[in-house]
Amino acid sequence: MMTLVDMSKHELEQLLHELKSKYNGYKSKNLKLDMSRGKPAPEQLEYCEEMLYCLNGNFKSENGIDVRNYGIPDGIPEAKRLFAQILDVDPANVIVGGNSSLSLMFDITSNAYLKGVLPGMKPWSTVEHPKFLCPVPGYDRHFSVTQFFGIEMINIPMDEQGPNMDLVEKLVADDDSIKGIWCVPKYSNPSGVTYSESVVKRLGALKPAAKDFRIFCDNAYVVHHLDINNQDKLYNIYQACVEGGNEDMVYLFTSTSKITFPGSGVCAMAASPANIEYTRKLLSIKTIGYNKVNQLLHVRYLQDINGVSALMERQASSVRPKFTMVQQVLNKELADLGCANWSNPNGGYFVSFDTMPGCAKRVHRLCAEAGVTLTTAGATYPYGIDPADGNIRIAPTYPPVSDLEIAMELLALVVKIVSIEKLLA
Amino acid sequence: MMTLVDMSKHELEQLLHELKSKYNGYKSKNLKLDMSRGKPAPEQLEYCEEMLYCLNGNFKSENGIDVRNYGIPDGIPEAKRLFAQILDVDPANVIVGGNSSLSLMFDITSNAYLKGVLPGMKPWSTVEHPKFLCPVPGYDRHFSVTQFFGIEMINIPMDEQGPNMDLVEKLVADDDSIKGIWCVPKYSNPSGVTYSESVVKRLGALKPAAKDFRIFCDNAYVVHHLDINNQDKLYNIYQACVEGGNEDMVYLFTSTSKITFPGSGVCAMAASPANIEYTRKLLSIKTIGYNKVNQLLHVRYLQDINGVSALMERQASSVRPKFTMVQQVLNKELADLGCANWSNPNGGYFVSFDTMPGCAKRVHRLCAEAGVTLTTAGATYPYGIDPADGNIRIAPTYPPVSDLEIAMELLALVVKIVSIEKLLA
Repeated sequence: MMTLVDMSKHELEQLLHELKSKYNGYKSKNLKLDMSRGKPAPEQLEYCEEMLYCLNGNFKSENGIDVRNYGIPDGIPEAKRLFAQILDVDPANVIVGGNSSLSLMFDITSNAYLKGVLPGMKPWSTVEHPKFLCPVPGYDRHFSVTQFFGIEMINIPMDEQGPNMDLVEKLVADDDSIKGIWCVPKYSNPSGVTYSESVVKRLGALKPAAKDFRIFCDNAYVVHHLDINNQDKLYNIYQACVEGGNEDMVYLFTSTSKITFPGSGVCAMAASPANIEYTRKLLSIKTIGYNKVNQLLHVRYLQDINGVSALMERQASSVRPKFTMVQQVLNKELADLGCANWSNPNGGYFVSFDTMPGCAKRVHRLCAEAGVTLTTAGATYPYGIDPADGNIRIAPTYPPVSDLEIAMELLALVVKIVSIEKLLA
Repeated sequence: MMTLVDMSKHELEQLLHELKSKYNGYKSKNLKLDMSRGKPAPEQLEYCEEMLYCLNGNFKSENGIDVRNYGIPDGIPEAKRLFAQILDVDPANVIVGGNSSLSLMFDITSNAYLKGVLPGMKPWSTVEHPKFLCPVPGYDRHFSVTQFFGIEMINIPMDEQGPNMDLVEKLVADDDSIKGIWCVPKYSNPSGVTYSESVVKRLGALKPAAKDFRIFCDNAYVVHHLDINNQDKLYNIYQACVEGGNEDMVYLFTSTSKITFPGSGVCAMAASPANIEYTRKLLSIKTIGYNKVNQLLHVRYLQDINGVSALMERQASSVRPKFTMVQQVLNKELADLGCANWSNPNGGYFVSFDTMPGCAKRVHRLCAEAGVTLTTAGATYPYGIDPADGNIRIAPTYPPVSDLEIAMELLALVVKIVSIEKLLA
């Protein structure tokens, strides 16, 4: 098969005509498929239903506290231990939170903005133009948090190893108003990239001009492999920071949102003793404690990292066929046309799809007009602005495989149409 | 019996000698009783255990949404309806949150501080010296929130009708840097006072110089009567604000922390449509949604306001005998001595106890030295500073009645000792 750019004007026009007629066929189907968010499918919610019934009237944490009453603002000890295993850190370095790691990231950002990252450090709000580095494409909700606080965001290109570290090193060394970087180091949202050992070590060894620079490391997909026998390995970022003499430089976050129940799971953060102590103190202003009944439910059911792995195999049994279908349709329809690239990750919740420059918004619109809602084009960039207008985040987990196949075929069709229109313009 | 001030020096010295010997007797008992926080007793945690098992595999909200998945950041409709009944407002004016109304109050304060109370309003952070009115004695965690944001706190004396409204009206009319007031309008923490209809109507009709003045109305004890047949009535504050042409001036908060499980309940806020719309928008930056499984558990179990009332009768069966014991011991030991006053509330979690001026800290210390931990003296005032050093918050709910009796007898004894010492000094 020829690539589109090798075709003559006439060939392109003829092809466009055929494709448009196909597209009108899709339109008449009145599809209504939502692929906009990384949302688990209905069947994934069934895998841990028994968790809700596993306490059997025993509400005592292992330290003898009744989890139904007030107290223990930083989490019950067995929950700290579980998250310590997930994040590969010491339980003493863990705070277990509520149902939302995003809230915890927001609160940590808010504390840094209003009070500074540690006692004696100036609040970020006192800096004239505080800035954050944002590896792109990335997660829109991260960007919304920094935007809320008026923190300027700087795009950092990602490649298959992670963020461009030459650029990161140079920027943080030169500019002490750069206060942090958002990272999803494993099965990154949306590219699926796992940061290489070299990237992680360079992150840990950064020499930022700002002494209060922080790596916000959202390890949302830490155990979210598509195939347990084909996992990406992530070098321990906390360890890398310790080795780099930067123990206080990183906050790790994770949650069970895509392990147990999205929105009714448990989140946690890990950081250095100094960070944990200060965070505990500041969080105690805003809460008497997080939902410890839910913490205990999770630990009693999951037990330890092996229990987590077992459940994640069940989760993968739902997610994997969908990722396979995405690759199958894209390979069949687009592999040889030279008008698109996409990721083929070993885990996470997304496939990152790149059109020819200037096509993503129109692809999004034409898909929407035919009943398939994709993540808004641009959403994977700070301020919703993708400079190349090329990136689309595919979120394949929610729809059934049969619907997903239709949606992907429509997407491929639309990409061809928009690409040809661009070439003809 | 004579009051202490009527006694001669010699009589006081003799009495002091006897009391000190009794006190030393208590010390040798090695008591260890914690009455520092408003914490439900172990038996209160048992009353709604069945709530945890009431879903029976049916996870659909009445709008068809699976509560285990992402979505609905402002709460499932049936939970909005339940809290609307509790707060006596329209369900459309309700946002249902997570497990902590304190967190919601913090977030609302934070939003006002960083973004302003409504679109187009200046953030409170742009005011040179933002201030809050704090009816005293009050709740220490409220004061910690305003202190966190550097908001100056002004004491407003409380009487049996509520805050001194002459003072409130004058202050808010004169000073546009006064941005809010903390209120616990029903069974107030710690005085147990329920604001009178006149006070509520005057609150609703305030004419603040600051257009972004807000009443933070923490209705934590809205259904927390000691005796269902002897309830205080609270005039509807939201209604009072509507009548006063101040619909946007009030935020209402409540939670099930002392209805179902402390720390694992559900909280909610209510406000005007404009406030709710803006709050929903800002909260969506920090969370994809609160724990809806817990919301559904609560509604399926409690059903409606009648279910709440039924459960609160069970709660009262634990709480009431303790409040009775407090009154019994205080009346027996201190009624005629003229050295103390205390409240006798119809609900809530506290008895407010006033010593002679300058005695509260020493009473707290002597009780602690004999093994009874009371709420720190001063905690009921902003910055922990009780100008009269006279107020002590008694939190009788946690210990068993028999322990409570001992603790109260010790408290009465210590109050006598410290009062006599003061008279002799």
